[in-house]
Amino acid sequence: MNDVSSDLYPAIRLDRAREAVRAAGLGALLLTPGPDLRYVTGYDAVPLERLTCLVVPAAGEPFLVVPRLEVAAAEHSPAGRLGVEFLAWDETDDPYGLVARRIPGLAAVGVADRMWAMQSLRLRAAMPGVEQVLAGTVLGELRIRKSAPEVAALREAGAAIDAVHRQVPGFLKAGRTEREVGRDIAEAILAAGHATVDFVIVASGPNGASPHHELSDRVVRPGDPIVVDIGGTMPSGYCSDSTRTYAVGEPPADFLASYEVLRRAQEAACRAVRPGTTCEAVDAAARQVIADAGFGEYFIHRTGHGIGLETHEDPYIVAGNTRRLEPGMAFSVEPGVYLSGRHGARIEDIVVCTESGGERLNNRPRDLVVVDA
Amino acid sequence: MNDVSSDLYPAIRLDRAREAVRAAGLGALLLTPGPDLRYVTGYDAVPLERLTCLVVPAAGEPFLVVPRLEVAAAEHSPAGRLGVEFLAWDETDDPYGLVARRIPGLAAVGVADRMWAMQSLRLRAAMPGVEQVLAGTVLGELRIRKSAPEVAALREAGAAIDAVHRQVPGFLKAGRTEREVGRDIAEAILAAGHATVDFVIVASGPNGASPHHELSDRVVRPGDPIVVDIGGTMPSGYCSDSTRTYAVGEPPADFLASYEVLRRAQEAACRAVRPGTTCEAVDAAARQVIADAGFGEYFIHRTGHGIGLETHEDPYIVAGNTRRLEPGMAFSVEPGVYLSGRHGARIEDIVVCTESGGERLNNRPRDLVVVDA
Repeated sequence: MNDVSSDLYPAIRLDRAREAVRAAGLGALLLTPGPDLRYVTGYDAVPLERLTCLVVPAAGEPFLVVPRLEVAAAEHSPAGRLGVEFLAWDETDDPYGLVARRIPGLAAVGVADRMWAMQSLRLRAAMPGVEQVLAGTVLGELRIRKSAPEVAALREAGAAIDAVHRQVPGFLKAGRTEREVGRDIAEAILAAGHATVDFVIVASGPNGASPHHELSDRVVRPGDPIVVDIGGTMPSGYCSDSTRTYAVGEPPADFLASYEVLRRAQEAACRAVRPGTTCEAVDAAARQVIADAGFGEYFIHRTGHGIGLETHEDPYIVAGNTRRLEPGMAFSVEPGVYLSGRHGARIEDIVVCTESGGERLNNRPRDLVVVDA
Repeated sequence: MNDVSSDLYPAIRLDRAREAVRAAGLGALLLTPGPDLRYVTGYDAVPLERLTCLVVPAAGEPFLVVPRLEVAAAEHSPAGRLGVEFLAWDETDDPYGLVARRIPGLAAVGVADRMWAMQSLRLRAAMPGVEQVLAGTVLGELRIRKSAPEVAALREAGAAIDAVHRQVPGFLKAGRTEREVGRDIAEAILAAGHATVDFVIVASGPNGASPHHELSDRVVRPGDPIVVDIGGTMPSGYCSDSTRTYAVGEPPADFLASYEVLRRAQEAACRAVRPGTTCEAVDAAARQVIADAGFGEYFIHRTGHGIGLETHEDPYIVAGNTRRLEPGMAFSVEPGVYLSGRHGARIEDIVVCTESGGERLNNRPRDLVVVDA
């Protein structure tokens, strides 16, 4: 997955990261494989126990500490055209000492937000007294505003997961288990162009009341509402995430009433998206509709999460987040109503803030899709 | 993927973990989603930004800090039958403070080896002065020896990936790209019963010389050797990982000569597996055959890695590792020969140490498979 466009991962991003390190007063950024490293370099390295670490010092040149057997992959990745020195290490070398010796005397470093403890604690041991802070404190402000090519990549991801939702009614049938349906969906996620399947939630009947239920051997029954929340990562590195709620045969009347409230709430939150609006105001727009209808206590999670190289990243659409939206911010709008022991429903689109409002990147119909039992 | 056998994840493991915490002189283990948490509880929680953390104190009862919207999933997982208290937190609560307040006054805690820095640094801030060490220092000795049900789960994973390798010759054809072949393989990995596709390496021609090359748009040509290294995770949580080398049409004569050396080296290392033998001796058994044939400098990585709930875990089969094998230890034996700019080859089986020797969990033929161009 290393053949990515230089528009999506421009070389200038490394310079911007260096400027941000200096501005933050840190001595260096230490980026192990994961979204922070991919954002800065385009290098889609696999997180493994052997240390791969891009060091971006405030003073001096960036370098990549890399296991010798990963050198070819790193060279062929977009990181190979950044002019960064590669420090290859062999199987019996100590890569943590290698990092420490090259950047002596620092007071504080930023470590990738997803760096494993296995690595952050070994770096700490190799660099005693050096404070570790999250790289996100530096990179977050860069990553939160998507460039036009990044928005295009998210749009492509949105179209791919929409293509899967288009097929879901054909997978749903009374008598099949959630797991059987989930297997079909996983294959469709790959067939639609994703590089990986990140999650497949098929929550039928009472399982729908658990927002993060995944798959079980429960058999779908006539009248079941079914929450289908699915996503994957595209070869570009950008993620998809969309939820639709289906019903196999005619669902209970009380479910239909709550679903209609949910549909209005999701619509209201999407319409609230525009530059200058706070994240918590978007959350409140959905929550108000649901509360007014008397279902407030059944909407038990935030309205959404940012999305990009991670399925969940800033900005979070949640009470208390007073951050104001800006063009290029992309996030989910996914209110839900969960009635414990009975059923649940959720509708989720990815929305990107534009100059004048919000653009939805998922466009499947939002009315309840009733499939023949 | 929460319906797992109580043989595979016995409830007694939590007690054993507590004993190990006390024996290590730690105040508590803090386990976020990942293989350490799954090993101790069977709970296959998704790693996300919201804190889920099992706390196993040396003194007092274990408890699970869990986002409210994950409570149902946690209750339905094997963790739900452990009698562990659940501390649910709401979207605007501080879960790090929640952990810290319940276990005051500790000197040191063990954190999951794969805990994200996002969480380990926030725990550090919430528990200032408390030393963090790796949970692996405590759990590693439990995880490294697989129980009979764990070996059975690895055997099932091995059979599943063997079933994929059986289909690979049908996917390989001159004129197809590595990526096209990789897509077919990914679908076959799921169809063979894996819950997830973890990696798909299709390294054709010169790409085979990069051990961790993944997929590219290179078109397979007649005469190409092709390294196919693939693996996934089964619904049990246990991983598969197997490599075979193929050729599309007749490969170069020098390739055939090096392949035959490799085959003998892999065989020698597998035969070296028995209780009491050191990890480095198994590595040396493969390396000696390759060095004797004059290819020593082209075998640029260790011979193998342990496997279980992680694709790479202890024990590592590498020079310098004087650990002695014991029944139940499971690991890959995967020597390779890499000729930069030309081609590469690797043969990989998972081997489990038994009372009397080693059992291979991958059983596809190891001779070069030549497919019609």
